[in-house]
Amino acid sequence: MPIQLNDMPALSPNLRALPFVNQLIAHREQFKVEVSKISGVTIIDCGVSVPGGWETGLIFAKICLGGLAKVKLHWADFRGLRWPALEVITDHPVRACMASQYAGWFIKRDKFSAMGSGPARAVVHSEELFGKLGYRDSAQVAVLCLESRKLPPEGAVNLILEKCGCQAENLYILVAPTASIVGSVQIAARSVETGLHKMMELGYDLGLVERGWGISPLAPVAADDLSAIGRTNDAILYGATVQYQVQDEDACLKALVGKVPSASSRDYGLPFRELFDRVGNFYDIDPLLFSPAEVWLSNEKSGCSFHAGEIRPDLLRKSFQLGS
Amino acid sequence: MPIQLNDMPALSPNLRALPFVNQLIAHREQFKVEVSKISGVTIIDCGVSVPGGWETGLIFAKICLGGLAKVKLHWADFRGLRWPALEVITDHPVRACMASQYAGWFIKRDKFSAMGSGPARAVVHSEELFGKLGYRDSAQVAVLCLESRKLPPEGAVNLILEKCGCQAENLYILVAPTASIVGSVQIAARSVETGLHKMMELGYDLGLVERGWGISPLAPVAADDLSAIGRTNDAILYGATVQYQVQDEDACLKALVGKVPSASSRDYGLPFRELFDRVGNFYDIDPLLFSPAEVWLSNEKSGCSFHAGEIRPDLLRKSFQLGS
Amino acid sequence: MPIQLNDMPALSPNLRALPFVNQLIAHREQFKVEVSKISGVTIIDCGVSVPGGWETGLIFAKICLGGLAKVKLHWADFRGLRWPALEVITDHPVRACMASQYAGWFIKRDKFSAMGSGPARAVVHSEELFGKLGYRDSAQVAVLCLESRKLPPEGAVNLILEKCGCQAENLYILVAPTASIVGSVQIAARSVETGLHKMMELGYDLGLVERGWGISPLAPVAADDLSAIGRTNDAILYGATVQYQVQDEDACLKALVGKVPSASSRDYGLPFRELFDRVGNFYDIDPLLFSPAEVWLSNEKSGCSFHAGEIRPDLLRKSFQLGS
Repeated sequence: MPIQLNDMPALSPNLRALPFVNQLIAHREQFKVEVSKISGVTIIDCGVSVPGGWETGLIFAKICLGGLAKVKLHWADFRGLRWPALEVITDHPVRACMASQYAGWFIKRDKFSAMGSGPARAVVHSEELFGKLGYRDSAQVAVLCLESRKLPPEGAVNLILEKCGCQAENLYILVAPTASIVGSVQIAARSVETGLHKMMELGYDLGLVERGWGISPLAPVAADDLSAIGRTNDAILYGATVQYQVQDEDACLKALVGKVPSASSRDYGLPFRELFDRVGNFYDIDPLLFSPAEVWLSNEKSGCSFHAGEIRPDLLRKSFQLGS
Repeated sequence: MPIQLNDMPALSPNLRALPFVNQLIAHREQFKVEVSKISGVTIIDCGVSVPGGWETGLIFAKICLGGLAKVKLHWADFRGLRWPALEVITDHPVRACMASQYAGWFIKRDKFSAMGSGPARAVVHSEELFGKLGYRDSAQVAVLCLESRKLPPEGAVNLILEKCGCQAENLYILVAPTASIVGSVQIAARSVETGLHKMMELGYDLGLVERGWGISPLAPVAADDLSAIGRTNDAILYGATVQYQVQDEDACLKALVGKVPSASSRDYGLPFRELFDRVGNFYDIDPLLFSPAEVWLSNEKSGCSFHAGEIRPDLLRKSFQLGS
Repeated sequence: MPIQLNDMPALSPNLRALPFVNQLIAHREQFKVEVSKISGVTIIDCGVSVPGGWETGLIFAKICLGGLAKVKLHWADFRGLRWPALEVITDHPVRACMASQYAGWFIKRDKFSAMGSGPARAVVHSEELFGKLGYRDSAQVAVLCLESRKLPPEGAVNLILEKCGCQAENLYILVAPTASIVGSVQIAARSVETGLHKMMELGYDLGLVERGWGISPLAPVAADDLSAIGRTNDAILYGATVQYQVQDEDACLKALVGKVPSASSRDYGLPFRELFDRVGNFYDIDPLLFSPAEVWLSNEKSGCSFHAGEIRPDLLRKSFQLGS
């Protein structure tokens, strides 16, 4: 049975993302981004040929979450490793993380390919996921986030425009490579999302999840995109802690909690890049690896909280190449 | 001798709370609140028949503090317990916490009763406390916060309206049960307040306190209101640390500091709910128990800081029912 | 070769500081500041004859950084010492910290003398530093921050006005003593700056530094300015951790990193006040002492991070006079 998120303008992830998009456009020197037009569509380069920044990454992450989450930076203590961290706090976890932030749209046209995430997916609403959510965003504006080393060529932009079905002037595409500061920040903002996605894969009814709050270390920018994929994943797998507040029976949560953190996967324990080198391709890696290191399920019905997993500063140091 | 807070619009807790009230009203879907009218008065349900959220709780707390404090959420480390926290920072501690936030108005009409807190109290200014403060807020607007499982019925609303003496359309009543997310958040925001109140009870001149900054863990939502009272109290008693910056003599502060934290009470050491079950009623519990776990008094005159108390993650884990 | 910061209004530290200045002026009761005019110039007293506050200090620090950095307060854990902290995050480190925040203008007229910092320096652009930066701010507005126990007399104001070369109504001078809450806050905001300045002294090309993020404890207000100089310095020297993200060769960073933290100085290890009493005057203290306790250099080109130094809660406790 679908979750049936309601479709009201006040909660439209695309409409809520728009002011942040306009902020990037209005303050491009401050955010170190570049704005251009392809086929009449606004393209915001957040790290391909420009540096971007921490604040740019924060705005990118807020956009990706459909303006439905607080996102903030602060130094934290990861069990002895004092290191910059990012927090995501959302009272709309399914809408913000699943209907918007999840990187569920694989875009491919000619030689260009990239994972698409962010609110535009809810306008397109053709992923299987949207059937489960019972939701589409009927906004006339669409905002898409691409994780890519290149700006999308005209063909890809036209493909996206067609799928979104909006006016070209109402489509915005943000682009940042994995190995960029914006890439590091926006992926660290996926702690709540990865756990939700895994719970869904485990068959859990996300409609029972009221709220989600995650903290993750910020992976330093890597030398290349493959290394960046490795360490930004590790930031979540070995560094993130998430609390979900749910309405459920204790027995269900007790049975669930141990299955959620990354440690429950057969592929747990190696920096992601090493795992990848050993396995040889992404599709042979256990999809259930992708979740936070540590999870709290707090049950509002009983008042009990259930816990599993732990963060691994030793693996973070190795993955992030933190010299002595 | 009263403290003699001045009565100027720029520091009126009711006028300063109003923009936050309007934010809740304007974005009710985002904040998951419900707005209705009783006798022409605006009632904002923040957790009775709606879920509310973390961000709703933040706004509720800012309103309760009369818009005179920063309130923010972040993960913190409570001596080994990494857990969501709330901070309150105020340069107007007496006005924000005593003249506004303190739950000093017991409202009772027919079968309805609830503790009232927030800026409206300073308009009514009939509590004994306001004599000590030498203060009333002459604003034409009043904002009241109720900790209650039910919305106030017409009789109670009329009583409040009469006491406030303002136009019905200028009175706003916010309601959240103890066992709700807004309840958890707004009570965690009382770390600075409980310590100030206790210092006042100990005869200390609050006019010497320049600033207050507290951090407290966020109690997860409990199954019922009595359990919620227990653990939200414990969040302060066993989890809060507060720094007060004062202008005083070292000898006075040295003599005072050990008396301020909860540990100075004969009833210290049990989760509040257990204590309550043992004692049987609230009125037999030592009123001096209600204060932060750990206190710093930093003297601007001498540059010396005095410290007492400690946080107790062991008791927090027990009280919050944090499973293994 | 100069760094050649561009001169565009969107990144003008003076224009960016102005809204914060206006915020102080508009809300003087809230911020506990006093606004007056001397020779037509707006003087904002942030702690000479008024108390100021934490929020005032935050705004003062943002102004001093030319509106080009996030500045925020939160409790942190300094290796066992849980204490209020301040963070600075900037994507424009050289412009914010060197062209604006650095206290590089020694103002002396008649019997008045004070260190000037903040954006006005970039309008004057006569310090040797501005040659290295290849930069002047051509804004018609100038904002200067003074660390002083007294408001500047007319002669000093006229001197400043003349150097800035702007209309009197477009010049703003903020003043706060070292031994004041605003003093404590604005100096704690210098963690990124002190490290940058030291790297420059060591001959490092600051043009390679993309971003800087620092955290520092907040020194409690001292009894007098000399003690305050001591402990606010110690907050940086023994309490601050900074991460710089750079584009460089690993070999250069590996050679550099150990030289950056305060521990590399011959004068490291005593609370600053004790050192001063022993040495007798400022000019005999090793200028290379002034830098953060702990430094990370994260190289975006290689993905490797280099680390040196450590924070010293033992020395912080001593310097801050934190009683048992």
